[in-house]
Amino acid sequence: MNDIVKPPAGGNAVFMRRVIELSRESMNTLHGGPFGALVIKGEKIISEGTNSVTLWNDPTAHAEVVAIRRACTALNTFQLTDCDIYTSCEPCPMCLGAIYWARPRVVYYAGERTDAAQAGFDDDLIYRELPLPPSRRSIPMVQMMHEEATRVLAEWNAKPDKIRY
Amino acid sequence: MNDIVKPPAGGNAVFMRRVIELSRESMNTLHGGPFGALVIKGEKIISEGTNSVTLWNDPTAHAEVVAIRRACTALNTFQLTDCDIYTSCEPCPMCLGAIYWARPRVVYYAGERTDAAQAGFDDDLIYRELPLPPSRRSIPMVQMMHEEATRVLAEWNAKPDKIRY
Repeated sequence: MNDIVKPPAGGNAVFMRRVIELSRESMNTLHGGPFGALVIKGEKIISEGTNSVTLWNDPTAHAEVVAIRRACTALNTFQLTDCDIYTSCEPCPMCLGAIYWARPRVVYYAGERTDAAQAGFDDDLIYRELPLPPSRRSIPMVQMMHEEATRVLAEWNAKPDKIRY
Repeated sequence: MNDIVKPPAGGNAVFMRRVIELSRESMNTLHGGPFGALVIKGEKIISEGTNSVTLWNDPTAHAEVVAIRRACTALNTFQLTDCDIYTSCEPCPMCLGAIYWARPRVVYYAGERTDAAQAGFDDDLIYRELPLPPSRRSIPMVQMMHEEATRVLAEWNAKPDKIRY
């Protein structure tokens, strides 16, 4: 990825060093894959996350997801407005999706998805699967009862007291 | 999406009806967005999930993520081998990523990402952002300290007692 901005515009090496330390800790304690993440607000660490997939039996417990969930609990919000995320590796599609839903200000990352792939992680495969139409993906996806579902979404649209996120 | 398989090959309308009921419940109780999901093994419901983003202050608490996490706890595993997922709407990129990491057998879905977009949800935007190089995304992504991160991944590769996931 030749068009990545290097060196970092505004990234704090102290935070990234902590993230890489976390990734090594996660590996050495066998809590999960070698990945770490932080959520920062201003110059303060709001939360730390390490990959805990195998420790917790939770395939969604990637470092970024763990850090985002903890930061939202700490800040009592479902939006990480004005927060920055530091992660030891380019987020996988799940984590990138979580980041978009949390809406932080900026993401700093160190490793790339191809590095993760070389270490045996599926990130790159999932990036290639996502743009495919559902019916062509390696996990079969089958649509049914479309109309019934759209009726609920229409009710949502008409609902005056909904909380948007 | 004209090439989607219709009607469903093997989807069980009883389960999808339950999922759509869950999506309506989630909307009416204001727990979150109007979305529901189930994890099924054989003919048994292992877990149910509804969108609980605003209730729990957790932007990752989409119906599929909640159902996957609960099913993994119930089955004491981080892999949903031989399980099926039913979801009231085509999974967003975060949930689709979670599904790939959980590795179920098949995903049945009802609504489409464009339906979700019309109801004010970002799914479709995130699908369009994902294939972009990190530096071109609407949430800025900045790389730093690449070498330090790859060193940890090399240590992981050399580690004999790692648990793969």
